[in-house]
Amino acid sequence: MSTQTITLTGHSIIAGREVVGTGGTTHGIDPSTNTELEPAYSLVDETQLAEATAAAEEAFESFSALHPETHAAFLERAAANIEAVGPELVARASTETGLPQARLNGELARTTGQLRLFASVVRQGDHRGVRLEPALPGRAPLPRPDLRQRKVPLGPVAVFGASNFPFAFSTAGGDTASALAAGCPVVFKAHNAHPGTGEIVGHALTEAVRESGLHPGVFSLVYGPGASIGQALVKDPAIKAVGFTGSRAAGTALMATAAARPEPIPVYAEMSSINPVFVFESVLRGNVDEFARAYVTSLTGSSGQLCTNPGLLFVPAGEAGDAFLTAVGRALADAEGATMLTPGIAASCRAGIDALRDQPGVDVVAQGREGSTENAPAPVVFASDVPTFSTNPVLQEEIFGAASLAIRYGSAAELADAARRMEGQLTASLFLTEADHATAAPLLPVLERKVGRILANGWPTGVDVGDAMVHGGPFPATSDSRTTSVGTLAIERFLRPVAYQNIPDALLPAPVQDDNPWHLNRRVDGRLQLADAQELAQEGAHS
Amino acid sequence: MSTQTITLTGHSIIAGREVVGTGGTTHGIDPSTNTELEPAYSLVDETQLAEATAAAEEAFESFSALHPETHAAFLERAAANIEAVGPELVARASTETGLPQARLNGELARTTGQLRLFASVVRQGDHRGVRLEPALPGRAPLPRPDLRQRKVPLGPVAVFGASNFPFAFSTAGGDTASALAAGCPVVFKAHNAHPGTGEIVGHALTEAVRESGLHPGVFSLVYGPGASIGQALVKDPAIKAVGFTGSRAAGTALMATAAARPEPIPVYAEMSSINPVFVFESVLRGNVDEFARAYVTSLTGSSGQLCTNPGLLFVPAGEAGDAFLTAVGRALADAEGATMLTPGIAASCRAGIDALRDQPGVDVVAQGREGSTENAPAPVVFASDVPTFSTNPVLQEEIFGAASLAIRYGSAAELADAARRMEGQLTASLFLTEADHATAAPLLPVLERKVGRILANGWPTGVDVGDAMVHGGPFPATSDSRTTSVGTLAIERFLRPVAYQNIPDALLPAPVQDDNPWHLNRRVDGRLQLADAQELAQEGAHS
Repeated sequence: MSTQTITLTGHSIIAGREVVGTGGTTHGIDPSTNTELEPAYSLVDETQLAEATAAAEEAFESFSALHPETHAAFLERAAANIEAVGPELVARASTETGLPQARLNGELARTTGQLRLFASVVRQGDHRGVRLEPALPGRAPLPRPDLRQRKVPLGPVAVFGASNFPFAFSTAGGDTASALAAGCPVVFKAHNAHPGTGEIVGHALTEAVRESGLHPGVFSLVYGPGASIGQALVKDPAIKAVGFTGSRAAGTALMATAAARPEPIPVYAEMSSINPVFVFESVLRGNVDEFARAYVTSLTGSSGQLCTNPGLLFVPAGEAGDAFLTAVGRALADAEGATMLTPGIAASCRAGIDALRDQPGVDVVAQGREGSTENAPAPVVFASDVPTFSTNPVLQEEIFGAASLAIRYGSAAELADAARRMEGQLTASLFLTEADHATAAPLLPVLERKVGRILANGWPTGVDVGDAMVHGGPFPATSDSRTTSVGTLAIERFLRPVAYQNIPDALLPAPVQDDNPWHLNRRVDGRLQLADAQELAQEGAHS
Repeated sequence: MSTQTITLTGHSIIAGREVVGTGGTTHGIDPSTNTELEPAYSLVDETQLAEATAAAEEAFESFSALHPETHAAFLERAAANIEAVGPELVARASTETGLPQARLNGELARTTGQLRLFASVVRQGDHRGVRLEPALPGRAPLPRPDLRQRKVPLGPVAVFGASNFPFAFSTAGGDTASALAAGCPVVFKAHNAHPGTGEIVGHALTEAVRESGLHPGVFSLVYGPGASIGQALVKDPAIKAVGFTGSRAAGTALMATAAARPEPIPVYAEMSSINPVFVFESVLRGNVDEFARAYVTSLTGSSGQLCTNPGLLFVPAGEAGDAFLTAVGRALADAEGATMLTPGIAASCRAGIDALRDQPGVDVVAQGREGSTENAPAPVVFASDVPTFSTNPVLQEEIFGAASLAIRYGSAAELADAARRMEGQLTASLFLTEADHATAAPLLPVLERKVGRILANGWPTGVDVGDAMVHGGPFPATSDSRTTSVGTLAIERFLRPVAYQNIPDALLPAPVQDDNPWHLNRRVDGRLQLADAQELAQEGAHS
């Protein structure tokens, strides 16, 4: 059933209430035809925005102290409610974004899977970071007090979604899921490129808040004029952290605003990455056509609009590299441009392609066809060399879309030098065989300083959502390299430690109480003690 | 033996070399007499500073990859080298800071203890944050790649020491120790209020670098004109994080510089805190004189120059509170001002006291005597009430020194309201008995949002250095509430995660290699596995 049975209202949702914005209206657009979509979305003004942040602040105390089971069940309800409207969601999102339904079905599963993964994190509880140091009254020269540490949520979080992942990095995406899992109420600034998708997800989340008996301020969804309401949200004193996925310009603007507040707050912005791929010569001894097709598939999927798109590819200068680039030319010749997310994004992509084409020492080596819909630029691969790359910063600029730059390199030393000159990236990929290990080994420490994830023999697109993933990296890939926006570690972004010294057990929060009612793993005197082992030991002692 | 046998050179130490600065000179001052101390200290210019940061950058790759045993032994050597010059250090520091030798002996032990604690952290290895997700080739709809995560050091760190802890928060203090433990080379901006102390410690550290066979760029100590060289250091592209302890004005200036860099970097600044103490009525039914003396001791120790000084004390309005304040008056009458760290700090303290005395609704309730040395203002306790406190921001300003403000409160609700209006703090202390638990309980969640450490029935001064301590808190107590500057968790400030996807074992760094050569606890598929348990299981499987 993909018939749309949901009536969209065009309203914001502030603490469970539908609110008609008094700050103008906007419309979604079908980017494949450039036609406006109904309904009109009314935009909130700053007074209405302040209702959302005030409600989030009000919700904080109870939400941050939820029992893990209630908390996890809420996240699971959110997932179930989203799944229940899956076909409607995918249909609307596909119309609003131009992304194909198959891709959106996968993204939806990732989004609900992510909410459930965080539910399991909440139940498991290691993110609470419990550390105990029992009192040592006899310690010399001074007795040691009883000290207990745990992590608490930062406070209400502002989240800005991405245009390119209308589910997984948007209304109930990774930032929202990890902030809610941490115990932080969320005020979500709806993405105006997929307003209907946002509304459907917003209702699913709001319903989960209600069904779970939580304070309605736990989640609000506001439509607003991009820059002004976004800035107002980040300036709001109730907001204690920001999650953002989008452009470098918008991300750095939010960083500046957050740093200039009377009380500066952390901003987790995932922004710009060209995801270098390093191809070693021995790899090109195999089937270069297959390898070229895989590159083109990674490059053109979702019309190239992925943060981990392989925008930069280092290939050996000479015959093998040339043969590979010729194969890329063959593979890309058949590729047709696909509708991009918005007319603005398509125009930026074309402008980026034009600018790169104009650089001295840069040539087009492969070119696809313009798509048959609106906003579907032809995919393209350029080529240049390390000296040009190292001296012209335009070659390091991200082109958001299906455009990539191949750089011919002469030696391993030249490769390492180019890597050292790169800005921070989300990923770096190595294609190599065992014969290249000695050559590649010195590159690893260089890449560790530049990127969040290093891959071997795989393309960077496709980010697994799990416990060991890092989707992050040094600036400008993100605003804060100390974390990730995908995977379970993302919950740490919204937590801070608090210590309790000699506090009577009756006044302590559950995570640090003597009898460990939440069955948490705890670090005691610097050594991890697993809850299971503690319980086994206690049972042993009792029997 | 406290005879000074060390000849001070007055030089900076850049990557193991003594360097005569070409940017002017400065002198230490004996604040008890306002006399200049020999030798003159030459100040580096920006070119010389750049040698230090370039050497730190050069040292990074080898230092960040040290075997834990080499790494820990280096920190232990640093501790031993400092101990070996302990008497000379304490003598010089006492002359330069006016702090009594007994206090400095304690601080020195804390400093070497801290280095050894971080050595144990390095050996134990949990800060490496290893997470593994083995490949699942059969997973549907997509196979899972092999994913491994570990934390790597950020890069070279700039550290700025504090005037009030010439050992524990200075040259080889907590920031230096935790950065070095994380694997980050340190460029230390010497504190010009204790230059000779800094030089002695700097040589001890430099010697430890040499004895351990490390790259000399692992540690540099530079003397420079405070603001300009400090700003240049934070702007230097090689520097990837900043540790700072000092004033709010200086800390926020560094934060702004770091945020405005082409590549913004984290700043860990510990700045300003008045450390509220909440006294419940039942406590005052006991011996108020003893309680008042304990308050005065906490207030006047180290001439009140402690970040956790009890600058704010809430007492019940009415008879019991008045009796307590009268007792404080008796206890403080006998107290004499002690030499403060510098003439500038003493002048600021006097100015702060004068400003507070001039506020409407603020009275002096207790006053000590001016000290007999220079720079020894009389300790003082003021009193006011909640309405005045809540409406006049001057009452929340830190007076660095032996000055405190008692606030009379009428009800628990008034107390909670005052707490809500407070800025971020390092600590909050509760004095209460079991009879007060019900009244105090609602205050706890308020305080958790405001402070890094909550104490019961103890004074905030005296910060235990261990695994569960938090010496941090929301702005302006620190620039980053997500961490601590004291205790083992401080190492996390200088680390970031990196993920490895399908990287061949031969190319992986030791912490994430299959056979776990460093015997680390690891999180596998989201569950902690202790190294000991793994080894036992393997032994079991083999036998």
